[in-house]
Amino acid sequence: MKHLKIVEAPAGVEKSLALKKILSPILPGLSQVELKLKALGDESNGILKDSAHYVLDGEGKRLRAALVLFCASIEHDSNKNLSSSVRKDKVERVMEMAAAVELIHAATLVHDDIVDGSILRRLKPTVNIKFGDEVAVLLGDFLYSKAFKMIAEVGDETLTCEMARTTQGMCEGEIDQLKNRYKPNLTMEEYFSFIERKTASLIASSAFAGARLAPLPLKEQMALQKFALNVGISYQIIDDLLDVIGSESKLGKTLRTDTGNGKMTLPMILLFKRMQDSEKQKFIEGFATVHMDWEFIQTLLERHKIVELTKSYADNYFEGAVESLNGIPSAARESLLNLSQFILNRDY
Amino acid sequence: MKHLKIVEAPAGVEKSLALKKILSPILPGLSQVELKLKALGDESNGILKDSAHYVLDGEGKRLRAALVLFCASIEHDSNKNLSSSVRKDKVERVMEMAAAVELIHAATLVHDDIVDGSILRRLKPTVNIKFGDEVAVLLGDFLYSKAFKMIAEVGDETLTCEMARTTQGMCEGEIDQLKNRYKPNLTMEEYFSFIERKTASLIASSAFAGARLAPLPLKEQMALQKFALNVGISYQIIDDLLDVIGSESKLGKTLRTDTGNGKMTLPMILLFKRMQDSEKQKFIEGFATVHMDWEFIQTLLERHKIVELTKSYADNYFEGAVESLNGIPSAARESLLNLSQFILNRDY
Repeated sequence: MKHLKIVEAPAGVEKSLALKKILSPILPGLSQVELKLKALGDESNGILKDSAHYVLDGEGKRLRAALVLFCASIEHDSNKNLSSSVRKDKVERVMEMAAAVELIHAATLVHDDIVDGSILRRLKPTVNIKFGDEVAVLLGDFLYSKAFKMIAEVGDETLTCEMARTTQGMCEGEIDQLKNRYKPNLTMEEYFSFIERKTASLIASSAFAGARLAPLPLKEQMALQKFALNVGISYQIIDDLLDVIGSESKLGKTLRTDTGNGKMTLPMILLFKRMQDSEKQKFIEGFATVHMDWEFIQTLLERHKIVELTKSYADNYFEGAVESLNGIPSAARESLLNLSQFILNRDY
Repeated sequence: MKHLKIVEAPAGVEKSLALKKILSPILPGLSQVELKLKALGDESNGILKDSAHYVLDGEGKRLRAALVLFCASIEHDSNKNLSSSVRKDKVERVMEMAAAVELIHAATLVHDDIVDGSILRRLKPTVNIKFGDEVAVLLGDFLYSKAFKMIAEVGDETLTCEMARTTQGMCEGEIDQLKNRYKPNLTMEEYFSFIERKTASLIASSAFAGARLAPLPLKEQMALQKFALNVGISYQIIDDLLDVIGSESKLGKTLRTDTGNGKMTLPMILLFKRMQDSEKQKFIEGFATVHMDWEFIQTLLERHKIVELTKSYADNYFEGAVESLNGIPSAARESLLNLSQFILNRDY
């Protein structure tokens, strides 16, 4: 069983070099995606220019674009004899798709930050704080509409439907999560249905899109989609854990906002189930306020080994991800495993 | 030359009966679209249920859906021998598309009302006022994503690209207009570029989509798109004129908001060009505030016959619309002309 080594992750420059090494097979592609995103900032020469650059320039890990590129570059009998014109066309479509999934991701973050009233992301004020809600609404719409135009131009009906379905699911996931705020007794099933739609589905669709454009046979497309879905769920579990136990300066965002905003996430669901009635009472009093007694929570987290338990769920999904890669050629499998392990092994 | 008779339009019940008569060939289709939109409100069973019903149920003139349906029902050599299964499939795709364009329209209104800070639409508080900005952001995204899923499922690559291009243009039109607020010397070219992208393009794409799904030959698709583009421009000119001279109770929205918000529209552009320097000075002082001296404006509007002049622009585009229909079979041409004349002949 492969375990996630969250604590031992390298930091700073070392970490950035490690990522570069993992991404080395697709670095030229990623650079082109970066240029496309930067060009889009320039193109929006109106009031969105500053805000578009603010969210698009060199930001984020580009995990979704990387998955498109890695999966599209997997060699297989099905794509070893592509003519040079088909190959050239493929490269262009893959780049468009890789940029488009990053745009959808960026649009979601911008709009979610309005809805959640978030003030800090990636060590910077959110768009709604820095430029106002009006610009944030428009910027999100602009990014979505650009993404859909690019996806439509890739011209693969199945992919267009998949991406539309995913975006709709992300939107519904956000809505359902908002509707289920202030429920300290949220179930695990509800939690997993939120994170699958809100986070994991776009990661899964990115891998699927890359695999389809490779093109790989349907079986491999499905396997890669399942791999990425599991990585995505695992990723969100770790993200939610870090919100409870992480360090603000390392993560670059305000922490403990979930519980403060009345959102129950896996560590808190696991903890709440284990609390005695009087503890539940105390938890509910602090829940969805800024007055939660975090020392009390800390004591309970340790007593019930919630960090280890939460990690075991992430491990479990990661194991599922690893298994999904069984039929994938070994070089690609190794790259994808390194990438996902790197993404998941974040420090506090 | 056909003139628009803005003043003589019937009102109330009479008006509603007149519209029903014009729409009679497509009423069964429109009812089905209405059911689809209502079902969508029910489907969003989360926090959006109320707001989705609020904007989707029996609202608006369904001009865009009507254009899809009218154009799709035009009989032509190209579609007279469709097999019954192709015909059935066509009906389903046409309904999806008709509902989808109304969703895009609704999404745009909901998000624009946030951006513009509007408080009243169709005699009711806007979504941002009634349900808050957070719900308005989510509802717009939900409607957009639903629309794109439906369009993708229609499975016509050209239409998917057209709709994505249109939505992107609408978004960019809104952005450009916002960027050019507070410019009393806005040019006619700028104004027309805003309204073509923000309003006319979706109306044009609706007609194009119907014509393509009919299916009509490319020449007729283009003619109908051009017709609807001209109707859309004419429509927006009248809308902007009514913002200056209309009656709030009849139109169901706050008036004179454009000038108050620093937006120059055609009547004001025409007026500003004709003002003397001292009048311009006085105009600029009241511009983008709630302190505009409307008696002063009224006097100038009359002196320079701005209402008539603005209407002549609308007439001109309407004439262009009429001309575009030359090659269209006469029954369809009559229906489309009646519809557009009804839409344009609004009272104050």
